Amino acid sequence: MHTFEELVNLFADRFQTNQFPQQPEALYGAANYFLQLNGKRVRPVLCLMGNELFDIIHQNTWEAAIAVELFHSFTLIHDDMMDKAPLRRGLSTVHTKYGENTALLAGDVMMIQAYEFINKISVQHLHSILHLFNQTAKQVCEGQQMDIAFEKNDHVTLKDYLYMITLKTSVLIACSLKMGAILGGASEGNQQHVYEFGKNLGIAFQIQDDYLDAFGDSQKFGKQVGGDILANKKTFLLIHALEVATNEQKSNLLQLMRENPSDKINQVLSIFKTCKIDAWAKELKQKYFDVALQHLDAVAVVSVRKKNLYSLAEYLIQRDT
Amino acid sequence: MHTFEELVNLFADRFQTNQFPQQPEALYGAANYFLQLNGKRVRPVLCLMGNELFDIIHQNTWEAAIAVELFHSFTLIHDDMMDKAPLRRGLSTVHTKYGENTALLAGDVMMIQAYEFINKISVQHLHSILHLFNQTAKQVCEGQQMDIAFEKNDHVTLKDYLYMITLKTSVLIACSLKMGAILGGASEGNQQHVYEFGKNLGIAFQIQDDYLDAFGDSQKFGKQVGGDILANKKTFLLIHALEVATNEQKSNLLQLMRENPSDKINQVLSIFKTCKIDAWAKELKQKYFDVALQHLDAVAVVSVRKKNLYSLAEYLIQRDT
Repeated sequence: MHTFEELVNLFADRFQTNQFPQQPEALYGAANYFLQLNGKRVRPVLCLMGNELFDIIHQNTWEAAIAVELFHSFTLIHDDMMDKAPLRRGLSTVHTKYGENTALLAGDVMMIQAYEFINKISVQHLHSILHLFNQTAKQVCEGQQMDIAFEKNDHVTLKDYLYMITLKTSVLIACSLKMGAILGGASEGNQQHVYEFGKNLGIAFQIQDDYLDAFGDSQKFGKQVGGDILANKKTFLLIHALEVATNEQKSNLLQLMRENPSDKINQVLSIFKTCKIDAWAKELKQKYFDVALQHLDAVAVVSVRKKNLYSLAEYLIQRDT
Repeated sequence: MHTFEELVNLFADRFQTNQFPQQPEALYGAANYFLQLNGKRVRPVLCLMGNELFDIIHQNTWEAAIAVELFHSFTLIHDDMMDKAPLRRGLSTVHTKYGENTALLAGDVMMIQAYEFINKISVQHLHSILHLFNQTAKQVCEGQQMDIAFEKNDHVTLKDYLYMITLKTSVLIACSLKMGAILGGASEGNQQHVYEFGKNLGIAFQIQDDYLDAFGDSQKFGKQVGGDILANKKTFLLIHALEVATNEQKSNLLQLMRENPSDKINQVLSIFKTCKIDAWAKELKQKYFDVALQHLDAVAVVSVRKKNLYSLAEYLIQRDT
């Protein structure tokens, strides 16, 4: 069994970041460019860890892990287009560097390439893995569509937001783990616990992400705190604040969002603190984290096999960067 | 065995044009909207005909046919975005009606849905069908990328253009037929002949399409003749004209393309005729059509099974509308 860091390195050895051919150069140059941006590879490694919960890593799990990373890359290329984001991981996004049309096509071929790796999975598991993958892929698109719609909607409830985050972010984490579990020979009951572990961990992780953007230590966080606030981004914090604020606080918040004064971040943070949003967010994160751990507890394998996943979960949720 | 028209109707009975769920409404509303534009369903019906060359239609072939139509729909939604096309089949394109972001996602879910139908194919054929489908899907993206690049390139050769058309248009026709042949139990040799029949027929069909746009009878054609000329669209005709024209004709042609005078269509047509582009196009079309027929001839089944495909090929190529 391997730690997260060990698997990141093993995955890097097997994941070709220039896996597309030379021609047509613009299309595959754009696709290879994205893969060379070096993501954190969380999802493929979770796929490998899902396998290692039950057995040594099967050849097919490497292929499933690559498929997951390619699928995730596809979503990021298209999401960056929709968000008109100029940068990803500090470098130009694909559409900025290669143009919208090529980025659209580079995303498309990235998704098709993901399916080509799925197709390497042996017949015994191909139908179930492909179905899980398709179902998850559709949910991720649904989540992205909801996220777009929420931008123009001032009445997003916490329930709506949770559902959107579950689709947009959590199900792919859950799917990655479950694919590994299936290929590792897990029973259906264990597969389901692994899935729920991933889904709830994903939600807790997103709450942590939103929390750090507002309340993180900017030195440790490595980027300016308050980016979400500046951009009026809907987050767990903002949505809950709008739900619990007094009428006066709410009208202040909406005014700050409209007028973008120079001290906007501090003023919004001050309202957040008065409304105890920081404590609430920590509690909500802990709630989902606890549910995640209950599902990991319930997986019927000897506890030593779970050690690396417990450590990773702890690290992801306690991180302050 | 069934004629093309009979299969169009049988396919319509089984192809749900509102197959996506209700929520999120914007996303799946856009996807269902596109399916209701009622395409000609040429590709799925070719898939069915590829099966009927060898055997009665297998349940899996209906599913493959639906996958092909969904895949084709995905490419059209994304192509319309790249072309900034306002209309398709006389109605608003998806991005015009629902916005760019939703159209991007609607295309994505359409492709994923295609894979969900591929996943209904039984284990015996799943790997080979999925591989053919993936390979074709990548080629279609490559063709589209080349088409985009050609728009800004004044030195596209006939060879380049043929290669682009093969990828963008022909391989999906070939793939549709071959998928049907595989599921109908064809030998590998027969599968390959069916594929080459489709590929060459697709090229002949595109030459015919370009020919009709310039030399068709506008009354029979049902739309204004010369649309490609007006838009300076690269076609078989224009590319060959630029290759064979005298220096003077070529400079006239380029001037007409730059300046767009009111009688541009007639002037360009007059140069085309002087250069005998019409006769050349008919001959080139016939050349690919003949190769297509040679491959259909070579398929080792009793000739009565090929009757409907011969009729269809003849109809597609001789059509004047």
